[in-house]
Amino acid sequence: MAANRACSGNGSIQLREMKGILPEKKLLVEVCLSPGLYPSYHRENSVVVVIDIFRATSAICTAFQYGVEQMIPVAGLEEAAAYKAKGYMVGAERNGVALEGYDFGNSPYSYMTDNIRGKTIVISTTNGTQAIEAARGADKVVVGSFLNFTALCTWLKTQEKEVILLCSGWKNRFSMEDTLFAGAVAEELSKDAATFKLGDAALAAKYIFQSAQKNPYRLLHGSSHKERLSKLGLKEDIKYCLSLDKTTVIPILEGIALVKMNN
Amino acid sequence: MAANRACSGNGSIQLREMKGILPEKKLLVEVCLSPGLYPSYHRENSVVVVIDIFRATSAICTAFQYGVEQMIPVAGLEEAAAYKAKGYMVGAERNGVALEGYDFGNSPYSYMTDNIRGKTIVISTTNGTQAIEAARGADKVVVGSFLNFTALCTWLKTQEKEVILLCSGWKNRFSMEDTLFAGAVAEELSKDAATFKLGDAALAAKYIFQSAQKNPYRLLHGSSHKERLSKLGLKEDIKYCLSLDKTTVIPILEGIALVKMNN
Repeated sequence: MAANRACSGNGSIQLREMKGILPEKKLLVEVCLSPGLYPSYHRENSVVVVIDIFRATSAICTAFQYGVEQMIPVAGLEEAAAYKAKGYMVGAERNGVALEGYDFGNSPYSYMTDNIRGKTIVISTTNGTQAIEAARGADKVVVGSFLNFTALCTWLKTQEKEVILLCSGWKNRFSMEDTLFAGAVAEELSKDAATFKLGDAALAAKYIFQSAQKNPYRLLHGSSHKERLSKLGLKEDIKYCLSLDKTTVIPILEGIALVKMNN
Repeated sequence: MAANRACSGNGSIQLREMKGILPEKKLLVEVCLSPGLYPSYHRENSVVVVIDIFRATSAICTAFQYGVEQMIPVAGLEEAAAYKAKGYMVGAERNGVALEGYDFGNSPYSYMTDNIRGKTIVISTTNGTQAIEAARGADKVVVGSFLNFTALCTWLKTQEKEVILLCSGWKNRFSMEDTLFAGAVAEELSKDAATFKLGDAALAAKYIFQSAQKNPYRLLHGSSHKERLSKLGLKEDIKYCLSLDKTTVIPILEGIALVKMNN
């Protein structure tokens, strides 16, 4: 069957590729270091992984682990308030602090409850939901964090698509922890060197991750967002958000809502 | 004299600082990884170092080394053409290639001539001149490259100002070689830990530079812009742009033109 396909149409090229005469086109893995740069990185037919380690995408992965049915990310607080007025459960955070009058902030711990099973939750955060907004035009948008690292990488390897690792950053600025995670994914995908090649920012993120030598705390020492969260008394959150493979769930954007992917 | 100053006005605070009782406020060193992010990094009263290693800022440093009087960076080609029509010497490059009908591209070698001594040259390049344009509102804008590395760092240490290392990148995307240079400067400034502190992107750039272990070629292997220039037959340019301390000149923006700083 495969041989038949190879002989039809542009079969000669396919056959030469099969024999390794022509180099195969590898899939580009890139890291977009800020949502503000996304338009320069957007490519047709790619998978975008949205990353906001401290803490939106860690919180979203946790909510799906605890059985939430869908999460509607909204960039603006007005929209969040409108959903709240309609009776939705809403998570809202700005500058690291859960906003009063809402049901959740963006601490993963706040979503570790059976009360969310089968529910819809609307979420608006300082950076993460803005990044999801920026990537809406992509072919597939999924949510990544250390909490679903292995499941995410395993799935990405099956997609035969280019990958854009989109760091949410901090108000459009570079974020160390998001880049660190992007570097971990880039390193994992680059192990399959026959399939993937890394763009410049992905290479750089990989180097940064390798500098951490499996101890993200060392690298994050002195990083501004870790300091910011530490000052807010959120050391347990930091520790949890850096822990690996707590879940195999991969949230994926379908229409306006994130849902659990059937992977 | 210093003691007198310390006793006047808010002298008690100054005295306590001198005794190390109050922590001194350190000067932030940040790296802006793309001109597109500059608005998020802009700070009052800071020095911006514009970086385009391959090859605009390397070429500009070389031109001043060879005695050019001033260089007028312009972002658009229409403006470059208008200057050319008025009889100016003009350097114009897009996508790594010197444009026909102009006097120079952005190869440092093209500026190694006595013909430019005392002259004004207008220059427009794919990325570097766009970055200078983005930073125009800053207190001081200077031009950095490996070619003036030590002179630049020595001068920055005397300024008592925050430092923004602005990478020109490639069409708003991350660039490895610019980040590598920014990391080298960040590392050098961070040796004066009592004066400077590094922001997240500066820390990351420092880690990337340290990954290079004094061999930028290793790190740049596989980087897209190096590959692009290699394909254009510009390996000698790459090598030259990565060489250290060919000059002590620091170009600085005054009005619309870069001039040689009297440092």
